[in-house]
Amino acid sequence: MADSAPFGNYQYEIYLKGLADELPKLPIAWDALEAAAAEKLDAGAHGYVFGGAGAEDTMRENLEAFRRRRLLPRMLRDVSERTTVTTVLGQELNAPIVLAPVGVQSIVHPDGELAVARAAAAQGTTMIASTASSFTLEEIAEAGGPRWFQLYWPRGRELAASFVHRAEAAGYTALVVTLDTWLLAWRPRDLQGAYLPFLKSIGIANYLSDPVFRSTLADPPEEDPQGAVGQFVGVFSNPTVTWEDLAFLRETTDLPILLKGVLHPDDARLAREHGVDGLVVSNHGGRQVDGAIAALDALGPIVEAVGDDLALVLDSGVRTGADVAKALALGADAVGIGRPYLWGLAVAGEAGVTHVLKNLLAELDLTLALCGLTSPAELDGAAVTESA
Amino acid sequence: MADSAPFGNYQYEIYLKGLADELPKLPIAWDALEAAAAEKLDAGAHGYVFGGAGAEDTMRENLEAFRRRRLLPRMLRDVSERTTVTTVLGQELNAPIVLAPVGVQSIVHPDGELAVARAAAAQGTTMIASTASSFTLEEIAEAGGPRWFQLYWPRGRELAASFVHRAEAAGYTALVVTLDTWLLAWRPRDLQGAYLPFLKSIGIANYLSDPVFRSTLADPPEEDPQGAVGQFVGVFSNPTVTWEDLAFLRETTDLPILLKGVLHPDDARLAREHGVDGLVVSNHGGRQVDGAIAALDALGPIVEAVGDDLALVLDSGVRTGADVAKALALGADAVGIGRPYLWGLAVAGEAGVTHVLKNLLAELDLTLALCGLTSPAELDGAAVTESA
Amino acid sequence: MADSAPFGNYQYEIYLKGLADELPKLPIAWDALEAAAAEKLDAGAHGYVFGGAGAEDTMRENLEAFRRRRLLPRMLRDVSERTTVTTVLGQELNAPIVLAPVGVQSIVHPDGELAVARAAAAQGTTMIASTASSFTLEEIAEAGGPRWFQLYWPRGRELAASFVHRAEAAGYTALVVTLDTWLLAWRPRDLQGAYLPFLKSIGIANYLSDPVFRSTLADPPEEDPQGAVGQFVGVFSNPTVTWEDLAFLRETTDLPILLKGVLHPDDARLAREHGVDGLVVSNHGGRQVDGAIAALDALGPIVEAVGDDLALVLDSGVRTGADVAKALALGADAVGIGRPYLWGLAVAGEAGVTHVLKNLLAELDLTLALCGLTSPAELDGAAVTESA
Amino acid sequence: MADSAPFGNYQYEIYLKGLADELPKLPIAWDALEAAAAEKLDAGAHGYVFGGAGAEDTMRENLEAFRRRRLLPRMLRDVSERTTVTTVLGQELNAPIVLAPVGVQSIVHPDGELAVARAAAAQGTTMIASTASSFTLEEIAEAGGPRWFQLYWPRGRELAASFVHRAEAAGYTALVVTLDTWLLAWRPRDLQGAYLPFLKSIGIANYLSDPVFRSTLADPPEEDPQGAVGQFVGVFSNPTVTWEDLAFLRETTDLPILLKGVLHPDDARLAREHGVDGLVVSNHGGRQVDGAIAALDALGPIVEAVGDDLALVLDSGVRTGADVAKALALGADAVGIGRPYLWGLAVAGEAGVTHVLKNLLAELDLTLALCGLTSPAELDGAAVTESA
Repeated sequence: MADSAPFGNYQYEIYLKGLADELPKLPIAWDALEAAAAEKLDAGAHGYVFGGAGAEDTMRENLEAFRRRRLLPRMLRDVSERTTVTTVLGQELNAPIVLAPVGVQSIVHPDGELAVARAAAAQGTTMIASTASSFTLEEIAEAGGPRWFQLYWPRGRELAASFVHRAEAAGYTALVVTLDTWLLAWRPRDLQGAYLPFLKSIGIANYLSDPVFRSTLADPPEEDPQGAVGQFVGVFSNPTVTWEDLAFLRETTDLPILLKGVLHPDDARLAREHGVDGLVVSNHGGRQVDGAIAALDALGPIVEAVGDDLALVLDSGVRTGADVAKALALGADAVGIGRPYLWGLAVAGEAGVTHVLKNLLAELDLTLALCGLTSPAELDGAAVTESA
Repeated sequence: MADSAPFGNYQYEIYLKGLADELPKLPIAWDALEAAAAEKLDAGAHGYVFGGAGAEDTMRENLEAFRRRRLLPRMLRDVSERTTVTTVLGQELNAPIVLAPVGVQSIVHPDGELAVARAAAAQGTTMIASTASSFTLEEIAEAGGPRWFQLYWPRGRELAASFVHRAEAAGYTALVVTLDTWLLAWRPRDLQGAYLPFLKSIGIANYLSDPVFRSTLADPPEEDPQGAVGQFVGVFSNPTVTWEDLAFLRETTDLPILLKGVLHPDDARLAREHGVDGLVVSNHGGRQVDGAIAALDALGPIVEAVGDDLALVLDSGVRTGADVAKALALGADAVGIGRPYLWGLAVAGEAGVTHVLKNLLAELDLTLALCGLTSPAELDGAAVTESA
Repeated sequence: MADSAPFGNYQYEIYLKGLADELPKLPIAWDALEAAAAEKLDAGAHGYVFGGAGAEDTMRENLEAFRRRRLLPRMLRDVSERTTVTTVLGQELNAPIVLAPVGVQSIVHPDGELAVARAAAAQGTTMIASTASSFTLEEIAEAGGPRWFQLYWPRGRELAASFVHRAEAAGYTALVVTLDTWLLAWRPRDLQGAYLPFLKSIGIANYLSDPVFRSTLADPPEEDPQGAVGQFVGVFSNPTVTWEDLAFLRETTDLPILLKGVLHPDDARLAREHGVDGLVVSNHGGRQVDGAIAALDALGPIVEAVGDDLALVLDSGVRTGADVAKALALGADAVGIGRPYLWGLAVAGEAGVTHVLKNLLAELDLTLALCGLTSPAELDGAAVTESA
Repeated sequence: MADSAPFGNYQYEIYLKGLADELPKLPIAWDALEAAAAEKLDAGAHGYVFGGAGAEDTMRENLEAFRRRRLLPRMLRDVSERTTVTTVLGQELNAPIVLAPVGVQSIVHPDGELAVARAAAAQGTTMIASTASSFTLEEIAEAGGPRWFQLYWPRGRELAASFVHRAEAAGYTALVVTLDTWLLAWRPRDLQGAYLPFLKSIGIANYLSDPVFRSTLADPPEEDPQGAVGQFVGVFSNPTVTWEDLAFLRETTDLPILLKGVLHPDDARLAREHGVDGLVVSNHGGRQVDGAIAALDALGPIVEAVGDDLALVLDSGVRTGADVAKALALGADAVGIGRPYLWGLAVAGEAGVTHVLKNLLAELDLTLALCGLTSPAELDGAAVTESA
């Protein structure tokens, strides 16, 4: 066979290399994958991972916001040579797509974050490991892929510093500080069954393995698991944290710092004033403030306010290659995906995550090419318009 | 356990105190609770309480109007100390939420308004008792909670004055005068079965117990129930009432007076000119003028017209903590909820109302906190935006 | 019983006079009535009467256009004395509601137009009898109610004049000339079954009874029915008619002339120039040009162009009292209803039409009252707003 | 029978000539026809022909864009004499409707493009034959109807020139160069089953019959079918082609050249600069860039940019006569239909395509007439408005 000319690389494998034999178990259309994942999980885990806050209105609005923007393809540009490689925070990413931090992944699949980390590493995709991971950040790092660490800023600066220094030591190259979860939101699905994995010691591996945390326990967690859980609940979050406290983090690490959960342009400006390196424009996938603005709708004013100065990652509602392209055209430097890779994890563990990543990378590559673009950096406001 | 840091108080009870064992019978998501309530009631009672006027277009529009507004959370503000306490009409409310007046609650549950009053009192929530209650205003007052009295202004000033003076005597601290129900609207569900509780002597307790009303009867209602019903029908409303008549009420009582059902800013201005203290911006939950503007859409112009001078309560369409926050951000001082507490009442009597109140208070508290606010008073136009 | 104070008159009958016993067979909510009518008819008749042109997009849009407008009720106006009486073309109507012309009603119910005419006469509602009626215009006139005659302008001025003079003689007081049906539209439901009542001699009574028409036949229709049908097809419409031809009609009759089917303001201006008295702003209920503008959306520009000079009746999409109020607030002098009365006719003949008329009149009366208005004439632009 | 006055010609046949006996097998309403076609095909062929790219969002948006525009009919113009004849590129078309190019039609029906060509020829409708047809362009030409040739510009100018010269020799009168398919888009339905007809030698007839193509093969395709498929895959598309390469085509043929897939007005300007004759404004029916702007939404800016200079054909989303009229009113010179004729082909082969063409031509004729127009050329911006 002469050439794979009319195919993207992964398409080529699917259509021409018999890969399709595996696919019946792994739906490609995202809504079919979502449905397959739902069948795999019990109601508790399903509600926790795939549900949202309140009436789940912001969950829906996140998706609608993408529908309201339309791509404007350009023709007759040489797109035979393309790349999805992107530079964010001076770091080269294989694509403008990162795995948004999600905790307690072992409720989705026993391999949890380890499966995700392996799949991401194999694709070269940057994974943001959650403080609330089922496995320790060191275990996750063993997969060897590019990785950032998400920080739930705990009560107690010593513990916060310990997490940061462990992340540095384990090779994480950026710190993503979540600002929108000082309290758990009102989530009817979880509340209905009082489903909270932490209370069963799931998702607190980073705490149980932390010397500072352990030093605060009367007994080692191996002997008194519930005591450890109680202590975890007490230190998990610190709603007294304000902008001034960022100086502490800034002094604690040389890693680039991104603030996650920023939706208001004034907060974006404050972030710049306080010396952070980037933002994750996000409403936590509709899991925190129900009724909040769609992340994509929040992006424009933030780009206008700080787009030249801060790295901007957008998450909440990204499903397809077209969504990635739209977010970048509107000014994001990269996007985070959350639920999609968890659907893959639920359905087939590491193979499922690989499936999702390959699909999304392939779809993005093709979207760029068919829009007449050869790299994500070429996406700008000219490539997108509002729906009429 | 050190602290309930990442939890709101009621969440804490649900997740950590085993409260969840009771919950399977009490849905948390509002649409699930609504569905459970529908199963509890016969068609007549269901249509009366949960149906609306005409094609129920305004019922739907009330909900849509909330969907069109989006919250804009702020980050990194110290939200460790918060309150939902609100001052309206110089009265301290436990939250900017009152129970909108609803008549004939005994068709929903035999304990009717008494169950609601007890639940509200226990939570410290202000209940607006309806003139058309199944129990007398004095019986409702026995629950001891904060309470306002809703007046269906009857034909005959003597009877009107009697109601007002009884309310004063029973400790009601404000008078809510309904303006939008001089006639029953065209309600197909009720008309289909000719379902009207009053005709079976339900919802006329305040009349049957009133000395002025009784003095107009040929025979005591105990002897001639149908005669009393007929007399009730004749005096229930007075469509000749105009702005000039408000002077009578103003002279009759020192209680603050709110006019309920105002949707037009010119009526808001007239209300101010006529010396009332507040308004309930409301379309009666879509039960009176089908096709009417959504209450939330009516709010803005009214705030602009009289927002600095009159207390503004909004009802019609409030379902979630996000809805409360949006209404306050748009200028309301408080909201009224109606159907939601009746769903609770239908499903589990007093316990069901308690359930709804606790949920809504908790959700509001968390919404405030996660928006970076520590009190309802901080909600202003900067916290809300139109959907893109 | 002292008084029917809180009730409209018809409500009073329903709630208090046992009328409800009949109602289970006669749904009140319009969508339920529509569904009941659908069950009564075979597919052919159902498709013909209740279907529309093309993809039925304009049928849907007609309804949506009403949803986009919202009523703005006013409070505290004395509404104890009200009327729905309206003056159009110098004629007093019992309400701003007329029965839009619909042909071949015998396919809906054997009593067809006679049942409708009797019901309308009993209510005092003006009926527009169709040229294509199942019974002759003289038979329809026997019901004795107020009536206008709709003209399908035939090929041949002699026949046109004959129809007009017959209508005058039979007491019709206005002429409604349909402009939008020189050709039958593309109606998939009818085409699918080649269902066309005229071909079975239904709906051509006015032709068969006309001396001019009969004079053109080789044999009397009683002997050669198909020959008469063929002749009918040949003369039914005259797509060569232009504005200039209106002078002929103007000279032929002193009846006020309304042009039905006008949607463009320039056509409204031309109508005024050519001396007509009024317009029916209509897209034929979505049965002619699929994709056409909703009649209610067309109304505004037409009101602006000629609203001071011509009587304006709006039809296409009117279902509820709120719809009537919205159309009048936007500048119509009256509305026509079509499908709703046919649903009643299908379900219960004359009694069903009576049911629909009583319901709609009652709902309009209540809508006016609850908007703070005592007559249709008070409805103006201040009573309506766009949905936010 | 005197005359077919109130009927369009094809209506006349249906209603009066018993044609309806055949219709039960051939649905007229487009959604019913679509459903019937879906039942005829296996999942693979169905997904390939009727599915779209990505989440099929652009497929939906294409339809929505037509819903957002409304026709504004005019009255009282003489429409007794009408034509649908249209001149595009100096060529007279029987109507402003062409058959958009679709490849591999033998997966829909064994007669594939031959059935379509015969049906189109019988109606006088211009067919755009695809490079990827199941039969050779010469075989398709034998039907004798008006025809254009769609070019998938291959790798290798010699092969491209061979296709063009064969098309000239076979009587094709315009060249439609597809710009939006240098790579196959991400199409979940096809990928799920690795369904790609080309790999089974379907849709490569023009290659297998081409002397230039055959000269590149080691063995004749009759002996080594898979080798030929491999060679096809290698030459099918050439993503290095840019605007400069158009000069080659311009020099190779005197046929008018249209560029298909243009959505951005700047590309339309570039097309004009590079001397092409027309554009097909298209997003490939939502099969290439998911998330792309609806073709109809892209039309306006392109008309503004080059509408006076280039012929503009619009495809993607056209279903009804109203859609054709809207596109023309917004500035297109003609439209292409795709899926609709394939539904007909799937259901009944040539007879099904004939059915679709007759229906659409009849509906367009009636739409024009009922809008007060006697020819497509009269459609301009005054005939269309945005939905309110």
